[in-house]
Amino acid sequence: MPKVTPEYMEARRRQILDAARRCFLRDGFHSTSMQDLFAEAGLSAGAVYRHFPSKNEMITAIVEESMRDVLAMVHSVAKDRPSSSVGDLMADVFDIVKAKTAEQNIAGLSVLAWSESLRNPSLAAQFNDLLAQMRSALTEVIREHQQSGTLTREASPEAIGAALICTLPGYILQLAMGDSKALEGVPGALRALWPESAAS
Amino acid sequence: MPKVTPEYMEARRRQILDAARRCFLRDGFHSTSMQDLFAEAGLSAGAVYRHFPSKNEMITAIVEESMRDVLAMVHSVAKDRPSSSVGDLMADVFDIVKAKTAEQNIAGLSVLAWSESLRNPSLAAQFNDLLAQMRSALTEVIREHQQSGTLTREASPEAIGAALICTLPGYILQLAMGDSKALEGVPGALRALWPESAAS
Repeated sequence: MPKVTPEYMEARRRQILDAARRCFLRDGFHSTSMQDLFAEAGLSAGAVYRHFPSKNEMITAIVEESMRDVLAMVHSVAKDRPSSSVGDLMADVFDIVKAKTAEQNIAGLSVLAWSESLRNPSLAAQFNDLLAQMRSALTEVIREHQQSGTLTREASPEAIGAALICTLPGYILQLAMGDSKALEGVPGALRALWPESAAS
Repeated sequence: MPKVTPEYMEARRRQILDAARRCFLRDGFHSTSMQDLFAEAGLSAGAVYRHFPSKNEMITAIVEESMRDVLAMVHSVAKDRPSSSVGDLMADVFDIVKAKTAEQNIAGLSVLAWSESLRNPSLAAQFNDLLAQMRSALTEVIREHQQSGTLTREASPEAIGAALICTLPGYILQLAMGDSKALEGVPGALRALWPESAAS
């Protein structure tokens, strides 16, 4: 029996989540059985249950990982380039989401998880929380731009942040549906619509 | 046996789709069986199969109906009020989607159907087609506003239309997840961000 180090545990967890991701994307969340998951991961039932008592915990873990990544990107873009325009900030996030979709289809997994969250309150709470965090990061940037006079003051920074954050799920949905041609000009359009930086 | 008039057929079809809507929203698309649907509709298997050979045709019909409604609204708003600003046009569409969600939860059904469309190419084609039609209606309005000089020309009307249409699924997703408080200011923010009308 292999020695059970934290690294070993983490590698098994990774192996299970990668298998779950492939199964959910291929067959859907509900049509994937635990048996399918054992086979895809190449692990025994016991080895899988040790990490995840059910599919629900797997989809929650997958969503949490993707969200953490997207949120970290938003924060790092907002922090590393404080003089970026609102358009640049959003276009950068869209570009990263697109790259991560090419790697791991996070767009497809997000759409599956949205639908699952309609009947899974803890998953819905996770999404609402993620959107709230992104909204608040964006609101801060908008507030600075309003103070320096480069963005309309006819609406509150919170309301503008809430409106702009709405674009992200629409971009993700169209990526998931494979209509990437329609999306080609979107990051450029965002930069053009909000070109002013707070520092300029 | 009742006389089979077109009105009778249409009433039965309506009865089945309303039952399907309730079942899909309550239990999810995959966990709803045809038996559940017969019971919910209060109809025999034969009466249901006469209209819909499977759940797939029901969700397609439900989505088609909602889409037709949303698209008709977009066209009528764009046509009846040619001098509206881009922000007004979008805010009106958002308000109508919100009202229809209060009536029939079209937001929840849309999110279910998006996820289903990942493995149902004809449903995905329907969605891509709807988004393309909305994008093109919006693009026309944006083109007029660019010609009259009220909107940036740094991006093509197509790219701006594609960026703005991305906000609709995000709004729908958050309505479906019940975070309507976060959305309160969104229509107002859209009006404030694009206040100029082509005619002004």
